Amino acid sequence: MKLCMIGSRGHCGYVFESIAEVPELTLAAVSPGCGDDPSRLLAMAEHAGFHPELHQDWIAMLDKVSPDVVCIDGPFDKHAQMCVEALRRSIPVFCEKPIALTLEDLDRIREAQKNTSARIVSMVGLRYDPAFYQAANMVHAGAIGKIKLIRAQKSYKLGSRPDFYKKRETYGGTIPWVGSHALDWILYFTRDTFRSVTAVQTIEDNRGYGDLEVAALCQFVTRSGILATASIDYLRPSTASSHGDDRVRAAGTEGVIEVANGKIHLINADGEQLITPEPPDRKLFSDFILELAGGRPAIVSNEETFELTRSCLLAREAADTGKQIFF
Amino acid sequence: MKLCMIGSRGHCGYVFESIAEVPELTLAAVSPGCGDDPSRLLAMAEHAGFHPELHQDWIAMLDKVSPDVVCIDGPFDKHAQMCVEALRRSIPVFCEKPIALTLEDLDRIREAQKNTSARIVSMVGLRYDPAFYQAANMVHAGAIGKIKLIRAQKSYKLGSRPDFYKKRETYGGTIPWVGSHALDWILYFTRDTFRSVTAVQTIEDNRGYGDLEVAALCQFVTRSGILATASIDYLRPSTASSHGDDRVRAAGTEGVIEVANGKIHLINADGEQLITPEPPDRKLFSDFILELAGGRPAIVSNEETFELTRSCLLAREAADTGKQIFF
Repeated sequence: MKLCMIGSRGHCGYVFESIAEVPELTLAAVSPGCGDDPSRLLAMAEHAGFHPELHQDWIAMLDKVSPDVVCIDGPFDKHAQMCVEALRRSIPVFCEKPIALTLEDLDRIREAQKNTSARIVSMVGLRYDPAFYQAANMVHAGAIGKIKLIRAQKSYKLGSRPDFYKKRETYGGTIPWVGSHALDWILYFTRDTFRSVTAVQTIEDNRGYGDLEVAALCQFVTRSGILATASIDYLRPSTASSHGDDRVRAAGTEGVIEVANGKIHLINADGEQLITPEPPDRKLFSDFILELAGGRPAIVSNEETFELTRSCLLAREAADTGKQIFF
Repeated sequence: MKLCMIGSRGHCGYVFESIAEVPELTLAAVSPGCGDDPSRLLAMAEHAGFHPELHQDWIAMLDKVSPDVVCIDGPFDKHAQMCVEALRRSIPVFCEKPIALTLEDLDRIREAQKNTSARIVSMVGLRYDPAFYQAANMVHAGAIGKIKLIRAQKSYKLGSRPDFYKKRETYGGTIPWVGSHALDWILYFTRDTFRSVTAVQTIEDNRGYGDLEVAALCQFVTRSGILATASIDYLRPSTASSHGDDRVRAAGTEGVIEVANGKIHLINADGEQLITPEPPDRKLFSDFILELAGGRPAIVSNEETFELTRSCLLAREAADTGKQIFF
């Protein structure tokens, strides 16, 4: 199997995290994508033992190399076009989230995907984080009964970021960028989809980061009637021990489960337990590739990828307009 | 000073928690309020060393005893009438929250209070809880800079409750009853008021409790632009070590502070700290009485009591109607 990679603006590091688990996969070629500096991508490739061809033109690369899968991590506002071009060539896509910054672009990707059997997933890798993965499995196995209320939190350090974070057109907004993970946990834990959302966000006190929202809240009801909220911020102090403070709290008819600080806290009829999670039996990139290679299905479907992207964009629209949005 | 007490449906125990700190105060008379059984109230009084007169008719009691302050804890739907009758007699009021179950009733109380100098506060005693009290003081002293995002959580055991919890008319709803505390923390920590709210709630899976909402979410923006959310539920498992799981998380421009499990967790430029709070220098009831007696002002004003009640009722209306409400 041949892999091509386009760009390295986001989390293409996921590829190298588990590429060794797919020995039949070769990184054949890379393109910086739209004039970005290719050195980071080439250095990561070399560190992983690959010596890919370098193409300036990512479309020409796809045509010349005809890869079996492409990793898309170019400029955020180019994700959609890159996905469409790959899917039109029936190349499976592993794309940085969100795969589109507008609903129109998302529709274009859906349309392109309809005409091919090629798969697409986005890099919402925190579903594969040990504590979240195990907690979701526990919920699916009935540990807290029927979920009634769920909260997800993403809190990041703002740190120092490239200029493209300062403009909505090139960044996409904090709800899609940071909030993707929070919304994905809600969808994953509940195995449900959203019916309605209201959201609020603020760019004040964003330390000169232009359009970047430093905080946002989204409030959902799912189709089955679960109440859900996502809290998203860039307010984690630089002195904190980790980049992110990732959490989920799900309260059900038979118990409450929480993920925080990499641990799982469960209270149900059996009492209280603080659980250190096991390493998951899969990783984001290799899970996808092993499915492509004919193995076990990955835990993220095309439809979930589309639904998550749509949910993020509608939540952002709710925040932008101050209106409740129905899905 | 003479105290009268009406009813014991809620938290009139707050009176006895700190009545000993006001030696000049005597519990002169009690009334069960609207035909309730007086035995609980009488037992509490006796346990505190008082032998009050017992009046069936609470209005006649106010007229006959002319107390210097009245504790109102009758049926929830009678709070407003009881407050109005007391204020019309210029008797200061210490009332179970919410002081009114409708905006019209709240207006009646405001109107009655306008014509007197008598004070009114409601029993939102968790402002005086050691961890919340100290954390709020730290926030007011600048520990996290300017608050951008705040979340408050109330999670209770449902347990076994009297029948009046099963009807909206006699219970008032979970957002006012349980949520009062969450909204009060937000108002107290931010020293701000709300500009808008959307809210959701559910009565499904409420174990036969009629109209009682087992879970609710409220999402606010304050007048100064702070994003705020309250998570409210009766889903705490019976096996949990405490009745309530009370929390606040406030994220500001200079740090993040959290209250949970009775402790304060702070991250700011000075690093991370887990703080065991000191006992507060005041308690809910005696704080109010000592102000009436000419001492230090209590930390809750009439206006805050009205604003909190109004906020709860508007949040409930947002949940009932599915509409965004502007304050």
